[in-house]
Amino acid sequence: MKLNIAVLPGDGIGPEVIAQAEKVLKAIAMEFNHVFTFQHALVGASAIEKTGNPLPEETIDICEKADAILFGAIGNAAFDLDPYAKIRPEQGLLRLRKSLGLYTNIRPVIAYEDLLNKSSLKKKQISNTNILIYRELTGGIYFGEKKLSDDGNTASDICEYTRFEIERIAHLAFKAAQSRKRKLTLVDKANALESSRLWRRVVQEMAPQYPNVQLNFMYIDNAAMELILNPKQFDVILTENMFGDILSEEASVIVGSIGLLASASLGEKHAMFEPIHGAYSKAANKGVANPIASILAAAMLLDHFGLDDEAALIREGVDKSLKLHITTPDLNTKYDNITTTKVGDFIEDFINNPDETNLN
Amino acid sequence: MKLNIAVLPGDGIGPEVIAQAEKVLKAIAMEFNHVFTFQHALVGASAIEKTGNPLPEETIDICEKADAILFGAIGNAAFDLDPYAKIRPEQGLLRLRKSLGLYTNIRPVIAYEDLLNKSSLKKKQISNTNILIYRELTGGIYFGEKKLSDDGNTASDICEYTRFEIERIAHLAFKAAQSRKRKLTLVDKANALESSRLWRRVVQEMAPQYPNVQLNFMYIDNAAMELILNPKQFDVILTENMFGDILSEEASVIVGSIGLLASASLGEKHAMFEPIHGAYSKAANKGVANPIASILAAAMLLDHFGLDDEAALIREGVDKSLKLHITTPDLNTKYDNITTTKVGDFIEDFINNPDETNLN
Ligand SMILES: CC(C)[C@H](C(=O)O)[C@@H](O)C(=O)O
Ligand SMILES: CC(C)[C@H](C(=O)O)[C@@H](O)C(=O)O
Repeated sequence: MKLNIAVLPGDGIGPEVIAQAEKVLKAIAMEFNHVFTFQHALVGASAIEKTGNPLPEETIDICEKADAILFGAIGNAAFDLDPYAKIRPEQGLLRLRKSLGLYTNIRPVIAYEDLLNKSSLKKKQISNTNILIYRELTGGIYFGEKKLSDDGNTASDICEYTRFEIERIAHLAFKAAQSRKRKLTLVDKANALESSRLWRRVVQEMAPQYPNVQLNFMYIDNAAMELILNPKQFDVILTENMFGDILSEEASVIVGSIGLLASASLGEKHAMFEPIHGAYSKAANKGVANPIASILAAAMLLDHFGLDDEAALIREGVDKSLKLHITTPDLNTKYDNITTTKVGDFIEDFINNPDETNLN
Repeated sequence: MKLNIAVLPGDGIGPEVIAQAEKVLKAIAMEFNHVFTFQHALVGASAIEKTGNPLPEETIDICEKADAILFGAIGNAAFDLDPYAKIRPEQGLLRLRKSLGLYTNIRPVIAYEDLLNKSSLKKKQISNTNILIYRELTGGIYFGEKKLSDDGNTASDICEYTRFEIERIAHLAFKAAQSRKRKLTLVDKANALESSRLWRRVVQEMAPQYPNVQLNFMYIDNAAMELILNPKQFDVILTENMFGDILSEEASVIVGSIGLLASASLGEKHAMFEPIHGAYSKAANKGVANPIASILAAAMLLDHFGLDDEAALIREGVDKSLKLHITTPDLNTKYDNITTTKVGDFIEDFINNPDETNLN
């Protein structure tokens, strides 16, 4: 297969983790006789630095023409502390999602049996957890009208949703549940928000089309608790943009490190794959960033094109690296010299030689 | 001291847990020669049932005249499932907060050493956790304009904050930090929301007035993770209405049960005390509801009037009940016949006779 992949490393640890994902994809192409080409483009703080724009036209152009996008991370501590900044790295990511119409963000949360003791949660709590979070990604309060009064003393954001926006992602979530444990949980705040009541209404009305899916509802505050108390109760979680942001980052505690979670952002025409973690500028260029999330994002990219064996091989490599403790310090590895690159190298070697790879 | 206390038991398990708190307050009055009078009023689903209104005029009136309000819980499963309901139990609570101007909600999250093994989190993770959450309670997306389009296909909520709203609660949070570990964490989503940027701006500008307080910022998604990964890093958390709702319910996993967390809602003129849990209609009238949150709400009520010895005695009673496993099933007690009332009785007995109380 020929795939033209846009690579947007972004800021902070983005470039180093994405380099590992790209390396792994190259090994896959070699092994399976695919032709993957990679085109790099700027986004985020590094794009602001070079062009003044967090999402240069050229970047959008490269993404639009690509078959898939591999995205690193954006953000920069200086902007985080400056609430007056008008141009912000995050705009790069948010505008990209919006302009490519990436309305469905899928975040799998799967407990690795080999890592159960790395989690802050007790083993029996998390073992066998397997959740798929469907987060709406181009609507809600992130994208509603924002206002700041002239005197700078009043600020507002609008959270708006339409039936259309809810239905298109809800269908995908219902279908995902059908192919899994047939349980769909809509997370909202319908006891306080009109937009949440619309979510509840629309999803309830759709339920009869999926009679074999058990639908239930949970308030976001309650879900934030239940996700920790009893993660195994969840199969597919469907939720709006900001609640999905909160729940999916929270869910990383189940898995043991946010450095393990990948996501796919899908629209009608485009598909983007990224780790769910941020840019952590402080950790950049130290070799400590966990590349697994980005490498699993690459596996999700292959899934998307039906390259199942290829994706499976990457996941086997990841499993093996975890089993052998070839992991960065976030997972409290036994070895203290395992860098970002070493983890990538190990998985690359594994792909080239699945039966013979060991720590060397 | 003479105190006129409005009691709003509300729905579900509200009445049974509030009855224990009232009993405990009566024991305190007796023991310390105070005159506490209690005036009951309707709110929530039970008020809708009897009057058609989740917050009858009479209830507001009783609350306005009271020195303090003891509030149970509101909500009802039938309303939770009906996204079309125009009159809702929650309106009772939300309107009450708004009409009494209860803009500061304080939620302490303290890990009980005797309960460390009840938590879903590992012991070493949570031991010595002591967090005070300052949640803004009368602004933000709960109270901004709500719209539903005529065709019912578009719904929106506005999240708005003013400098004034932010400053008044931020001063209280800074002061609380000064009397504790001098650390204040503002939780917001300033990388996506204009209202969050205003929070960050205002709180940054106030910081020089509290030079001995270390101020830091955290995005809500990250905070939802850090609260579980490393709760001990937090001292005072300051946040807007909905983020505070989510974080404080999530924080209950640290303590071991949401049935242990109480809160105070304060304004310039009024003060209300309530458990943070909901009405759990399913659990009502089974004797399984944990009354500790309500009893601790009563202790916070006494704190508010400077009745320190009285509040301390209640807390000692609570500690003793936990140490002796005189707890409801949510805490997996050793004994299986400890009802809501029994826990209340035990703490009442303890107040009457602190040195001699044991399980009988
Ligand atoms: C950077 C930020 C705007 C973004 C979001 O909130 O969507 C990030 O947290 C994410 O989850 O991808
Ligand atoms: C009932 C609901 C509207 C309420 C809230 O979200 O404020 C509750 O969850 C709480 O925290 O007191």
